[in-house]
Amino acid sequence: MFADAPPNARTIKVSEIFGPTIQGEGALTGLPTVFVRMGGCDYRCSWCDTLYAVDSSFRDQWKPMSPAAIMSEVASLSGGKPLLVSLSGGNPAIQPLGALIDLGHEQGYRFALETQGSVVKDWFSKLDNLTLSPKPPSSDMETDWDLLANCVATAGSDTETIMKVVVFDDRDYAYAKEVHRRFPGLRMYLQPGNHTPGTVEETEPTIDMSGVMDRMRWLIDKVVDDEWYDATVLPQLHVLIWGNERGV
Amino acid sequence: MFADAPPNARTIKVSEIFGPTIQGEGALTGLPTVFVRMGGCDYRCSWCDTLYAVDSSFRDQWKPMSPAAIMSEVASLSGGKPLLVSLSGGNPAIQPLGALIDLGHEQGYRFALETQGSVVKDWFSKLDNLTLSPKPPSSDMETDWDLLANCVATAGSDTETIMKVVVFDDRDYAYAKEVHRRFPGLRMYLQPGNHTPGTVEETEPTIDMSGVMDRMRWLIDKVVDDEWYDATVLPQLHVLIWGNERGV
Repeated sequence: MFADAPPNARTIKVSEIFGPTIQGEGALTGLPTVFVRMGGCDYRCSWCDTLYAVDSSFRDQWKPMSPAAIMSEVASLSGGKPLLVSLSGGNPAIQPLGALIDLGHEQGYRFALETQGSVVKDWFSKLDNLTLSPKPPSSDMETDWDLLANCVATAGSDTETIMKVVVFDDRDYAYAKEVHRRFPGLRMYLQPGNHTPGTVEETEPTIDMSGVMDRMRWLIDKVVDDEWYDATVLPQLHVLIWGNERGV
Repeated sequence: MFADAPPNARTIKVSEIFGPTIQGEGALTGLPTVFVRMGGCDYRCSWCDTLYAVDSSFRDQWKPMSPAAIMSEVASLSGGKPLLVSLSGGNPAIQPLGALIDLGHEQGYRFALETQGSVVKDWFSKLDNLTLSPKPPSSDMETDWDLLANCVATAGSDTETIMKVVVFDDRDYAYAKEVHRRFPGLRMYLQPGNHTPGTVEETEPTIDMSGVMDRMRWLIDKVVDDEWYDATVLPQLHVLIWGNERGV
């Protein structure tokens, strides 16, 4: 039966590997990590901040790599000392990552993955942390709630699963509340949106820092006025520190 | 024997109660909370950012309050809905807070306290979260390591205890490493120092934001170069959002 398997069934499309730097978003904010960003995505959010890992015009820049090659590069960056590996994209869930996670775990690494929850993989249960970031109305994407619930169930109780929603406006905020209503047992992270992400043509524009901070204050006010006391509001810390610069 | 007890043995000296806002520091960053800031401190750090709760010239502004009066004001601010109460100072450990925590817990509130670890109280074990923030050399204070260890032991296993160290320079960084060496089982949070805190005369100066962010980048580089991968580096988020403004 092996003859039927494509020769590169375990090959992973990698857009970039960089770090160590700190995780800038969500539950692990501030923790040193190496990022492995996968290329390719089933979504195309209106405000995507990593089009170079999404838009197919960048496909030539996505390098097919084996789990061993990826872990070798991660180890080279970390000085061989195990740390948190952050799997991002694009949508990393469309890649075959089970063998990579197994190999890294054998070497003492931990794995966190962020995905929108539109693709379910059984290897979610191997992750140490799973951040589900379903996309709000401002993204122009539709949420498949059954698939999202399936992601949570498949990750299971050995994986720490949290929800993270980017909020630009009142409609997005109402959507975040709906996510919380559907998944009351999961911690919710709310993140003010960034209206100045990189574009296909220009990946490092000047950041609208005052706009991001205005939206952060607005979002805190919303959560407080709403008495939503078990939500956590965090900005994209790396954007505050480095703007939209890549590789940090 | 009751005659020997001072009439206000359970009275707490309160500098200010404000919120809900988000917690700006440490393990609970981003979570909505009401702050209860106690007046009085056994330390006098060179870069203290809350002198109005430390310097005795402000003593007239510290209001003696009962646990019931404090919880009444907290509930008024939170709309009666339980949330995280952050006990800060000054050094809140010099106040009698056991009865306050008991009363709040009965009402569904949770309690986080931050202290330098120079005063041990048996009610530490009642806290939900204890942040010990021993002061580095730049503070001009001396650490009593036995008292700090006693704080950890007294808090016990039902309280989530973490270490947070403010870092201004290389000596402070070496001190943070020493804290980690002595308490390897506790999560460490590193926080870049803020050279522009309020003074006794002026509590809301212009913040040196670029200095804070420069120090944040420097601190991330230190941690990464050092392969200190289980430390968490976080800025004072409230300072980035609101500067040194009080009451937010």
